[in-house]
Amino acid sequence: MSETRTEISSLGEFGLINHLTRNFETKQASTVVSVGDDAAVIDHFGKQTVITTDLLIEGVHFDLMYTPLKHLGYKSVIVNLSDIYAMNATPTHITMSIGISNRFSVEAIDEFYEGVYAACERYNVDLAGGDTSASQKGFIISVTAIGEVAPGKFVKRSTANKGDLICVSGDLGGAFLGLTLLEREKKIFLESPQVQPDLENEDYIVGRLLKPEARKDIIDFLEDRGVVPTAMMDVSDGISSEILHICRQSGLGCKIYEEKLPIAEDARKAAFKFGLDATVCALNGGEDYELIFTMSQDDYDKITINEEISVIGYMTDEEEGCKFLSKGGNTFNITAQGWNAFGK
Amino acid sequence: MSETRTEISSLGEFGLINHLTRNFETKQASTVVSVGDDAAVIDHFGKQTVITTDLLIEGVHFDLMYTPLKHLGYKSVIVNLSDIYAMNATPTHITMSIGISNRFSVEAIDEFYEGVYAACERYNVDLAGGDTSASQKGFIISVTAIGEVAPGKFVKRSTANKGDLICVSGDLGGAFLGLTLLEREKKIFLESPQVQPDLENEDYIVGRLLKPEARKDIIDFLEDRGVVPTAMMDVSDGISSEILHICRQSGLGCKIYEEKLPIAEDARKAAFKFGLDATVCALNGGEDYELIFTMSQDDYDKITINEEISVIGYMTDEEEGCKFLSKGGNTFNITAQGWNAFGK
Repeated sequence: MSETRTEISSLGEFGLINHLTRNFETKQASTVVSVGDDAAVIDHFGKQTVITTDLLIEGVHFDLMYTPLKHLGYKSVIVNLSDIYAMNATPTHITMSIGISNRFSVEAIDEFYEGVYAACERYNVDLAGGDTSASQKGFIISVTAIGEVAPGKFVKRSTANKGDLICVSGDLGGAFLGLTLLEREKKIFLESPQVQPDLENEDYIVGRLLKPEARKDIIDFLEDRGVVPTAMMDVSDGISSEILHICRQSGLGCKIYEEKLPIAEDARKAAFKFGLDATVCALNGGEDYELIFTMSQDDYDKITINEEISVIGYMTDEEEGCKFLSKGGNTFNITAQGWNAFGK
Repeated sequence: MSETRTEISSLGEFGLINHLTRNFETKQASTVVSVGDDAAVIDHFGKQTVITTDLLIEGVHFDLMYTPLKHLGYKSVIVNLSDIYAMNATPTHITMSIGISNRFSVEAIDEFYEGVYAACERYNVDLAGGDTSASQKGFIISVTAIGEVAPGKFVKRSTANKGDLICVSGDLGGAFLGLTLLEREKKIFLESPQVQPDLENEDYIVGRLLKPEARKDIIDFLEDRGVVPTAMMDVSDGISSEILHICRQSGLGCKIYEEKLPIAEDARKAAFKFGLDATVCALNGGEDYELIFTMSQDDYDKITINEEISVIGYMTDEEEGCKFLSKGGNTFNITAQGWNAFGK
């Protein structure tokens, strides 16, 4: 954080909004009215509007002890854009509401918004509105993302077909291992503040957690190749959980192969170091923000050129269940061990 | 609250979402995809999309000691619909995200959603998605409302003209007086729990605070009469603050007459009882969720039939400033004393 500390109360709510939006120019032709009125107006010119929202709460979804505010701002936007891409749509706008206690200075909020604007810039998205409020405790972030899609071109979770290939972008488990590392270092720091955190050679997994990207490139690639996924969603709770959503909503089963799961070398090394099973991290770790999609086997040749897409299995009849085949040749039922914020 | 207490953790996040949305049927033809996917898809069929969002935080925006959860659910929706109407648009969808600590049972959340659904029902709005999350402390509500408007028919704050009449719907100050009453009763209760709250004859002001409505009727009336406001916004922070927004954004001044301010008889009585000036309550009290709008003097005859619309003044040149004329014949500068959550 910078050295100056400006109290938020010195600006007031409207002053803060003006301050935060002072340099932001809208880029989307669809933005008719932006920040500064009761509501924003968007014209998608005949396209359908896609909308998603996420609530992120300090201490539940993020830990400011090891999350730089700029990264947090960036990620808050990304996790919502990821949902829009997962509908095969293009994000056009976000609204950003924050609740902040007076422990945050204007400079701190500026850092957060730097990340927000960086994500808007990179993904060509306009900030269309929002709300700033005091909070009694902690930092609260609520983002809504709006996108557009040509009528009927959206892709749901429920429309996979038997025999479809199951594909996943990028690699899995890295964000979970990054979280494991940072939680470990936090614990060490709290016990012995003089010990410097040991993050050497862990850039990859830390980056996977703190600065995820939304897979616009995959959506663009599929469109270029003329591949329309039959079902799609983003990987936020862990791929086991996501596969079960697609299976249940499509009324099908699936077969997934351990040997096909994409796991980065750095993630494997980290898993080994922490005594964790890399496959379990890949299956159940969340927050990778990759895309999982199904597609017709006929489209297989069109995607092989893209090393960022792995075919990890295929859809089966519902009666066959949701199965995982280990490298050792054993078959397991896939169970969702995704993150449950309400559990203990 | 009901007698049974079901822990939220017994349902999990997806279970809770399924539980909360189990009886909800979409009504809007524009709803293409609703709850249950990465994002919702809406087709406004050539109309423009209007979007607004609000973050409501326990202890900052509401006090559960005197706010029934059902009313809170209702009001959370209403305050957002009010913003959509204030753009001269029709709300079609909301997303609702909540953050809840484990002090809330499933039954308590059900009560909240009863209010949410009642508002959706009354205003013909679909719940299109949302998020449920754990919170570390208190109840957090984030609502986004989406609406539609014929291209170019939206009404901004910045487009008032010199000489336009300034109109306001309903009456002012009631919600603030309701809040004053409930805060007073809360204080008495905390000091002497055996004293029963004295809310007799205060239904009106309490209702203004706890169960506001959005002024769809006014928007419908104006459309019927062929009156297009030149500028409009909703009254959430107090009419002084709102008038200043319209003046500043339109580059104009205004003259407001005390004698024209609509104040309900019950609000006057309550103000007298509390030793408050009813006019000050009307000017600076927030949360009335009425509409303030400007319109051409030529349209005056078209609105006189509607007793729910008061003409309170007119727009002037910027140089004349924003003036308030008291009944006693004195002129004051209007200042925004609206609610500032970041104060103190």
